[in-house]
Amino acid sequence: MSDYNVAALSRLVEQFERMPGIGHKSAQRLAFYVLGLSEKEANGCADAIVQAHEKIHRCKICCNLTDGELCPICSSGRRDGQIICVVEDPRDVMAIERTGEYNGTYHVLHGAISPMGGVTPEDITIKELVRRCDGSVQEVIMATNPTVEGEATAMYISRLIKPLGVSVSRLAYGIPVGAELEYADEITLTRALEGRRLL
Amino acid sequence: MSDYNVAALSRLVEQFERMPGIGHKSAQRLAFYVLGLSEKEANGCADAIVQAHEKIHRCKICCNLTDGELCPICSSGRRDGQIICVVEDPRDVMAIERTGEYNGTYHVLHGAISPMGGVTPEDITIKELVRRCDGSVQEVIMATNPTVEGEATAMYISRLIKPLGVSVSRLAYGIPVGAELEYADEITLTRALEGRRLL
Repeated sequence: MSDYNVAALSRLVEQFERMPGIGHKSAQRLAFYVLGLSEKEANGCADAIVQAHEKIHRCKICCNLTDGELCPICSSGRRDGQIICVVEDPRDVMAIERTGEYNGTYHVLHGAISPMGGVTPEDITIKELVRRCDGSVQEVIMATNPTVEGEATAMYISRLIKPLGVSVSRLAYGIPVGAELEYADEITLTRALEGRRLL
Repeated sequence: MSDYNVAALSRLVEQFERMPGIGHKSAQRLAFYVLGLSEKEANGCADAIVQAHEKIHRCKICCNLTDGELCPICSSGRRDGQIICVVEDPRDVMAIERTGEYNGTYHVLHGAISPMGGVTPEDITIKELVRRCDGSVQEVIMATNPTVEGEATAMYISRLIKPLGVSVSRLAYGIPVGAELEYADEITLTRALEGRRLL
């Protein structure tokens, strides 16, 4: 044990160390960055954490994170409410929004069904999605991750909402743009062959 | 510009994005981590930032960061005050402490002289070091970085304190343990040859 042990500093390093993808050295670097801030900046940083935590909650319609009653997409008049894109995580919404190609709404599940991980259908926002399929919705695009859990979740939801008269689709599988065929795994290649389209 | 723009979330992401080594995607990941914390944990995290900033200041003797009047090393009775190891940054103290081989005290410069970067001798804690060399100090080990700035700082300080009857040494240069000779740069190899020792 080193003689140099400053409690307030260790506590700060520990906080950063708990964050995903931050090791001990990075945590130290971030802690020293914080110490180098002006008092106003440090308070601003702490305040952003408290405020985000206090103000951000789930949108009443799509369950995405928002600081209003509805999220900016659900409350926008320009989005097509007849199409719902179902994703696992708010970051997936951001990824799809970045394409600029999608004009429908979203539904954020906040997870995927995983019997091994102890996540049941009740733990994610499936019932909120089913409630939205009240006749006004024409298509639901399943954009859960291409993992075992994401697939199972897509299948489960599909079976629930198809009887409600909703058309259910799934994102296309295939070779990622810019990737090299040589390095594609067999399953992806098989799916790409299955999904081939006439030129 | 995406329709999905939540102010409290963007502010939090921005705060993380300003930190060293954190890009936009990592900042998003950290922000979602914070949102996933319990209220108590999030407040603890914010509090650690404010507290660290409020409580931590420079040790009156060695200028290292501490939350007391003196740092734990300067106030420890077990350290040899006759030897001072001069470093640029508090993290360098931590690195040397981890060796467990050094029993003297430190002096933290908080930078290195850099005419290009606008850092003059007055900007770092050189006068505090000179004040310590009052006859009780026998040896000063210059452990500034092996960069142009670190070298220049070591030379500058050495010229100031040698006349005060202090023996001044410099950390050894050479091949890092575990590295491969093949990949060592020429300057390091030259220094390693110059510093060779009889077996």
